[in-house]
Amino acid sequence: MNVPRPKIPVAVLGATGAVGQTFIRLLAAHPWFELAEVAASERSVGKAYSEAAHWIADHMPDDAARLSVLACDPDVVSAPIVFSALDSSVAGDVEQAFARAGRMVLTNARNHRMDADVPLVIPEVNADHLQLLEAQRARRGWRGGIVANGNCAAIVLTMALTPLQRAFGIEKVFVATLQAVSGAGYPGVPTLDILGNVIPFIGGGEEEKIETETPKMLGMFRGGAIEHAPMRVSAQVHRVPVENGHTASMAITLGRRASPDDVLSVLAGWRSAIAERALPSAPRDPLVLCRQPDRPQPRHDAGRGGGMSVSIGRVRGDSIGDVRMVACGHNTVRGAAGASILNAELLVADGWVPDEVAP
Amino acid sequence: MNVPRPKIPVAVLGATGAVGQTFIRLLAAHPWFELAEVAASERSVGKAYSEAAHWIADHMPDDAARLSVLACDPDVVSAPIVFSALDSSVAGDVEQAFARAGRMVLTNARNHRMDADVPLVIPEVNADHLQLLEAQRARRGWRGGIVANGNCAAIVLTMALTPLQRAFGIEKVFVATLQAVSGAGYPGVPTLDILGNVIPFIGGGEEEKIETETPKMLGMFRGGAIEHAPMRVSAQVHRVPVENGHTASMAITLGRRASPDDVLSVLAGWRSAIAERALPSAPRDPLVLCRQPDRPQPRHDAGRGGGMSVSIGRVRGDSIGDVRMVACGHNTVRGAAGASILNAELLVADGWVPDEVAP
Amino acid sequence: MNVPRPKIPVAVLGATGAVGQTFIRLLAAHPWFELAEVAASERSVGKAYSEAAHWIADHMPDDAARLSVLACDPDVVSAPIVFSALDSSVAGDVEQAFARAGRMVLTNARNHRMDADVPLVIPEVNADHLQLLEAQRARRGWRGGIVANGNCAAIVLTMALTPLQRAFGIEKVFVATLQAVSGAGYPGVPTLDILGNVIPFIGGGEEEKIETETPKMLGMFRGGAIEHAPMRVSAQVHRVPVENGHTASMAITLGRRASPDDVLSVLAGWRSAIAERALPSAPRDPLVLCRQPDRPQPRHDAGRGGGMSVSIGRVRGDSIGDVRMVACGHNTVRGAAGASILNAELLVADGWVPDEVAP
Amino acid sequence: MNVPRPKIPVAVLGATGAVGQTFIRLLAAHPWFELAEVAASERSVGKAYSEAAHWIADHMPDDAARLSVLACDPDVVSAPIVFSALDSSVAGDVEQAFARAGRMVLTNARNHRMDADVPLVIPEVNADHLQLLEAQRARRGWRGGIVANGNCAAIVLTMALTPLQRAFGIEKVFVATLQAVSGAGYPGVPTLDILGNVIPFIGGGEEEKIETETPKMLGMFRGGAIEHAPMRVSAQVHRVPVENGHTASMAITLGRRASPDDVLSVLAGWRSAIAERALPSAPRDPLVLCRQPDRPQPRHDAGRGGGMSVSIGRVRGDSIGDVRMVACGHNTVRGAAGASILNAELLVADGWVPDEVAP
Repeated sequence: MNVPRPKIPVAVLGATGAVGQTFIRLLAAHPWFELAEVAASERSVGKAYSEAAHWIADHMPDDAARLSVLACDPDVVSAPIVFSALDSSVAGDVEQAFARAGRMVLTNARNHRMDADVPLVIPEVNADHLQLLEAQRARRGWRGGIVANGNCAAIVLTMALTPLQRAFGIEKVFVATLQAVSGAGYPGVPTLDILGNVIPFIGGGEEEKIETETPKMLGMFRGGAIEHAPMRVSAQVHRVPVENGHTASMAITLGRRASPDDVLSVLAGWRSAIAERALPSAPRDPLVLCRQPDRPQPRHDAGRGGGMSVSIGRVRGDSIGDVRMVACGHNTVRGAAGASILNAELLVADGWVPDEVAP
Repeated sequence: MNVPRPKIPVAVLGATGAVGQTFIRLLAAHPWFELAEVAASERSVGKAYSEAAHWIADHMPDDAARLSVLACDPDVVSAPIVFSALDSSVAGDVEQAFARAGRMVLTNARNHRMDADVPLVIPEVNADHLQLLEAQRARRGWRGGIVANGNCAAIVLTMALTPLQRAFGIEKVFVATLQAVSGAGYPGVPTLDILGNVIPFIGGGEEEKIETETPKMLGMFRGGAIEHAPMRVSAQVHRVPVENGHTASMAITLGRRASPDDVLSVLAGWRSAIAERALPSAPRDPLVLCRQPDRPQPRHDAGRGGGMSVSIGRVRGDSIGDVRMVACGHNTVRGAAGASILNAELLVADGWVPDEVAP
Repeated sequence: MNVPRPKIPVAVLGATGAVGQTFIRLLAAHPWFELAEVAASERSVGKAYSEAAHWIADHMPDDAARLSVLACDPDVVSAPIVFSALDSSVAGDVEQAFARAGRMVLTNARNHRMDADVPLVIPEVNADHLQLLEAQRARRGWRGGIVANGNCAAIVLTMALTPLQRAFGIEKVFVATLQAVSGAGYPGVPTLDILGNVIPFIGGGEEEKIETETPKMLGMFRGGAIEHAPMRVSAQVHRVPVENGHTASMAITLGRRASPDDVLSVLAGWRSAIAERALPSAPRDPLVLCRQPDRPQPRHDAGRGGGMSVSIGRVRGDSIGDVRMVACGHNTVRGAAGASILNAELLVADGWVPDEVAP
Repeated sequence: MNVPRPKIPVAVLGATGAVGQTFIRLLAAHPWFELAEVAASERSVGKAYSEAAHWIADHMPDDAARLSVLACDPDVVSAPIVFSALDSSVAGDVEQAFARAGRMVLTNARNHRMDADVPLVIPEVNADHLQLLEAQRARRGWRGGIVANGNCAAIVLTMALTPLQRAFGIEKVFVATLQAVSGAGYPGVPTLDILGNVIPFIGGGEEEKIETETPKMLGMFRGGAIEHAPMRVSAQVHRVPVENGHTASMAITLGRRASPDDVLSVLAGWRSAIAERALPSAPRDPLVLCRQPDRPQPRHDAGRGGGMSVSIGRVRGDSIGDVRMVACGHNTVRGAAGASILNAELLVADGWVPDEVAP
């Protein structure tokens, strides 16, 4: 694999929001990409990024601070790789405009995730789904394309389920999630709503996203299309007073019976399909097995692998299905901005970004 | 029903711990019972209660503060009704000694819950299970008896499921709980473990208790014994940074198909079997239906009905089973001390406490 | 004192916000006042109150829920007593319009607090300041009038200092406050800003309010005006992840030397000037002395006296000044809505509300 | 300065507790020191460190995990540099035994801090205080010695005050602290005590430590002894629900008048006396000035400089004294283990560790 030299210029759309800021932070010292442009809604256009963004993490990277905020328009933003942290109320049209203009759009928005010709990609899980881009370009007449990453909780769930799906098949998954407040953006959840409390509801169809995106991500690329995995998912979501890190507790009925020890072996022995590719944002261990009986926990484990690993623990039998286990992953890194960036790295490594751009 | 006059003297065993303190608080102005004695472990014996207990709620009742702590011995404690907040490491033998000595023991400990001849009672659910006391007395040669209440999370779950079990039967329940730190007693959970965090584990066999106690509580008293409900329960528990109030999210497969609307009707129309009895601690509405889409929530709903109501919300269909819903109840009131006190009221109302004591 | 019969109709301006909701809650079962009207900004006018307010406390009173939201206009709102929970950006003009129209306005807004002819009242501290209303009416040509309550933290501080000011005089007070998030309204403080964190800053001139309002409230009504107390206050404010209850830690230099024991005696022996008047919202003990060394604490003590008592503890010597102590009070009750309601009760009891209204 | 080659073996006494664990974590990849031995109380002796310590941070370093826990006895522990995280109930005698046996003891315990011949050192502030070791050795007949670091809050306060003391002199400081729960060790503060709450008290004489240690640390080494700075400190401490990071808000009366701008210039222009020495744990910027009006905040700023920098903000005038400002520092790093390690580095750099050990 060729490491891009010089760095490829990239842009972030929706750069002032919470996910946009995570993009900025993760791109600050990226070995392949250089943050060249930031874009946001009308009221921020023309301001310095340092003025336009109410920065919520520790310290804004100096290079980003100096950028001027542009409009979300492919005539104004010139980078060949565009990360979209746009709100779903506007993401649809804007992202299509960029793809039509020949850009590769890596989107965290939900708008196109379930489109039949849009790959919903986790590189370690379904890198081959990128082949959908051919159908996408052909059907839509685009020179660029849109590649989506899944909902933050669906990504954690899907990564944890992948080895089981490959080894045994999965029939049913009951999943309860305990989701961090950063998933709601900024200002997001008012303190008075969540301090010392739990909210058993997340708007925007969170449960449905988990139930529909997971089978697509675990599906197979066959005959030019994605065949969704023949599993059923029942999700119950909760917001909890945690800063970062979604926890997902699963009760799983497998396609063929397996013991918790079988499952542990499969989890321990699983190797990501992209392990050889050395993508910069890919963690050494996409799945980390926790030995302590009370882990994973978001405060201790969400940050593993730079926030790109999913930690798994409490693998045990189930009194109804086959096996129960708990997974935890970083919702704004692995579940959002980091997911898009890793997808972009895969695009570059697989040659989907035009040569004149990625030498 | 006769209201006891004068008040019946009662004792609390394990009075210095967190659950013991809740007993003290709830008994402070009880219309039927008078706190006459407090007992605890060796190192507290002889001290004033105000000295022996590190009081964690707002203000210790004056009457309790003045009591001298006694040993947990039926030769020393004379009250005919005894509430046990003892730790399970010692509860077994002590409670039996009191029952043998003719006392009615209302226990929150787990030791005897699953004994075939010990009623595991929620008055609104299975008041008739008290009839097991006859078999208990006959078999064990006791004049008194032991009546247990269930695990705090199992009580919340069971109350929410009762109308469904009666109307449709229940086949399977997948339940995920988000449990308050007060359930771990005092000092209980260290702040460094749970602040801004979630722990997907609770020791002491919490999941197994939920899975086994629920079918017993929902069972039928037939032929002098309890026939457990023929249901399977899969529980996944989590500790969350909430002071009071356990939340339980359920995905339920019913015995016969029913729509969410059917379930809502059944929940709304359900009437507790003890509704006519006017027990002092029985809430007017044992089950409260929440209309808002994001309720119940522990901070707003755990205290309903003086902490004795269970709130239910988010009744909706399930993508695998029939229906999903969320319940929330106060773990140290309805799930512990209040449960025992209500059981004692039922015993008195049903004539299980000897006449010379309860005129 | 005559208890008003029938109840006096009252209105709440700014009824949909956080403080407005506290007014609604506290007025729900008020013995003298009847909530007759609610008013709010343009976008809520015409809606049912149940629709217009995102209710953040437990349960909205049914009577309030049915009210239709009116405009903040004295031609539309007819109640003779008007509580203002308006934002300071609009409170000034609106409140003056109501006073001009003959209404008694009890305001929680900061706009008129430091006006020389507006009484800044805590009944237990300076009930006599109401006499300023004569000057106010004379100078402004109003039939009604404006009575303000202080900033939430200034009220807690002032109540705690009152006995010391009366007994010894106060020269200097260094105060650090730890303020609850409910003080910032709703949605108020984003969770991501405060969870597991402390913010050493509160906007809107919080420190200056504490420094200027306290000497006015502790001042003397002399010669038709308020002579501010000749003290200096240095305030440092912090937002902390607490739901309700402001804590104020003070280091005090007295006018004449006194020992911590002297101060304790004065605090214990202090009697409110309105103790005889039996105003419905006045707590039996406006100041509660805590004996435990680690109290007061907001979660345990802010609610005392129905949220209207201020708790004081840790009275001890100071290595620079004379004495240090800690006070804690409920910021949205004693520090806001409850303060205004108590002021209104005082107005009625003292005959400042016209006879045709308060018989 | 010579960089030690090979690494110097070091030991940690009290290695299983919370501060002990921070030592282990900070020593894991130390360029000069090699963790050779861990010691703890009787009940841990002989166990593997991985078994003896309930590890509360993310992941225990492998090298430490394998060590066997030794007794706290200089006949058993052989390292020439010994870090003490012992509880004050035992630290006194043990530390003296090690010093007598020729070891350099860097202690975080309070026992010897105020001894006239024990240097209480913050290298950036008072590196010259190490000269006290000569008097200590002479008077006590020791070949080794004891060097203490101050109380966690006192260190944060002292570092922030240093430039002001040097430039203007300081007369009085009123300080209120908001201290993290990690300062209470593990298990430390029960969740039920602090969740959504504030405790205006910290045991063990916290306020007195701040008031007495600060003038010693800011004092001058003259005539073979420390002349304490002639300042008075009044401290009021609070425990808050923050994981790591103590905040200190100060109102300062200077020795000679200065404006906030003067103070800002002095803070910005201050250079640590050890800036040239390149000690491995010394942060590039011991004091960081925050520009945002609502900083420093523990969650964002406590970790700066690897937890070794103190952040300062809100420099403004005071209505009584001269200037107010807020400082924040990491209590278990800069305020405890990191402080001791930096002191050890200074000892090595200044030649206080025998040659045969530090070549």
